[in-house]
Amino acid sequence: MKVEKNSKHFGGDRRIIPKEPLFRSKNCYPDSPFQIEEPQEPIFRSKNCYPDPFFRSENITSGAPFQIKELLPRPPFQIEEYYPRSPFSDQRMHETVNINLQDKPEWFLKINPLGKVPTLQLNDKIMFESMITCDYLDETYPDHPLYPSDEWAKGWDKCLIEVFNAKVTSNYYKIFKSQDSAAIEEITESVNQGLQIFEDELAKRGTTFFWGNRPGMLDYAIFPWLERYPSARILFPDFVVFPKEKFPKLAKYYENMLQDDAVKAVIISPEDHAKFFKSFLGGRANYDIGRD
Amino acid sequence: MKVEKNSKHFGGDRRIIPKEPLFRSKNCYPDSPFQIEEPQEPIFRSKNCYPDPFFRSENITSGAPFQIKELLPRPPFQIEEYYPRSPFSDQRMHETVNINLQDKPEWFLKINPLGKVPTLQLNDKIMFESMITCDYLDETYPDHPLYPSDEWAKGWDKCLIEVFNAKVTSNYYKIFKSQDSAAIEEITESVNQGLQIFEDELAKRGTTFFWGNRPGMLDYAIFPWLERYPSARILFPDFVVFPKEKFPKLAKYYENMLQDDAVKAVIISPEDHAKFFKSFLGGRANYDIGRD
Repeated sequence: MKVEKNSKHFGGDRRIIPKEPLFRSKNCYPDSPFQIEEPQEPIFRSKNCYPDPFFRSENITSGAPFQIKELLPRPPFQIEEYYPRSPFSDQRMHETVNINLQDKPEWFLKINPLGKVPTLQLNDKIMFESMITCDYLDETYPDHPLYPSDEWAKGWDKCLIEVFNAKVTSNYYKIFKSQDSAAIEEITESVNQGLQIFEDELAKRGTTFFWGNRPGMLDYAIFPWLERYPSARILFPDFVVFPKEKFPKLAKYYENMLQDDAVKAVIISPEDHAKFFKSFLGGRANYDIGRD
Repeated sequence: MKVEKNSKHFGGDRRIIPKEPLFRSKNCYPDSPFQIEEPQEPIFRSKNCYPDPFFRSENITSGAPFQIKELLPRPPFQIEEYYPRSPFSDQRMHETVNINLQDKPEWFLKINPLGKVPTLQLNDKIMFESMITCDYLDETYPDHPLYPSDEWAKGWDKCLIEVFNAKVTSNYYKIFKSQDSAAIEEITESVNQGLQIFEDELAKRGTTFFWGNRPGMLDYAIFPWLERYPSARILFPDFVVFPKEKFPKLAKYYENMLQDDAVKAVIISPEDHAKFFKSFLGGRANYDIGRD
């Protein structure tokens, strides 16, 4: 069986007590600092698409990364590999399998009818849809809660995540499919209207982050999209979304989020984002960009 | 202040212990039998669109139902009305405000940027998106849990709700916009492919309902769409979705769901569904159909 360089094979279901974030990958919504003391089921596998900071694959753009079938002779229901990397690595048992989203492998679509990433897998059980996954992690590792304890406030944070997706994120991708300056202006206006809701909400809350004095689920859910706006301006100089003078609170919020350890650990530079999107629009996404 | 016939005004935030479902409306996903003993925040308002079994409005299709602004002089942040109806009515404080979805009132879009129904409101707090609302209710009233206690099984049930929405529900509405028989055949095939996943899942679980021996969240979330298929066949005889011989387990499941008290309380007949859709497609949805 072919295993990746630096990997180490354990086998079995050794119980582990990770001290670092158990689940960290570029496109998992909240790359959050779960402080896990007593995980009940700590061994899972994430299948994600964006460059993962832990592992490097040379052939990720050429199809199934890591030669999946060789690496996992009994896919997808056995956790077999273990990748040491950090001082805490011997306490972690977490394998990342990257999926080429422009050419999804059949075995992946078989276990995940919607073909969405990230997908978590624990033995024969899987879970997908970003917020379902994130809510699971939040419930399972309660030491570092990412939602307010008030149930209504929690529901409202979840609503705002949906509002962001509908009003901001969904418009974001339109920009990459439009070269027409009138269209760009219209998209810019739509995105800014959506962002205004969040500027107002920050003003109403009067807190550093939406959660409070540290980031929570709402923060980690929306920031990966805010993070991308500077890259859009590299590609489309007319795309004046998110101007500081119009959104002073969001601009300050953005700077504060950049100081968060969980964000620092997975941030992708605007230049790398821009490079990735150029490759994506060229029909051959290079998921290795930024992994040097 | 104008109040509806048979209504009774209490005012204030009287603490109540409802013995019947607190929240019941036609288009709330799980009209589930929450057995509430000690609700923490039992007073809320739902804004929903479908005919509600408790109240009747004569002018629902003509704009804001119940003359909202008169009924609620300080909308939308005061619960003011109380509608007695059942033997348990004096223990309930729950106002339903119907929204004409083809002409959404401005005040509604102001508190709910996505304009979605149902929306719950408690004093100055709101919540929308069906599954966020349902998950809130499930967490707040734990005596009658609608998810499995195993966290992974819970996540998988949530995934299946998303799969149903993407593979079945989203295709359902296409049928009403298509008169072409080739298109209907294609949609029929897509819907049946989606339903096959649920036929297989029922077989795998070997239970009466997806939850087990009674319906749970997954059951209540998907059944309102299964409920509509007979109406589609009234309108489009070629729409042979959900044939019993192809889906024996789902067909039996369908019959079992019809026996559930919560389903019985809110079921709409195929004939009324068909009438509603005719009015909907005619550009003037009649939300009063079936409320006689």
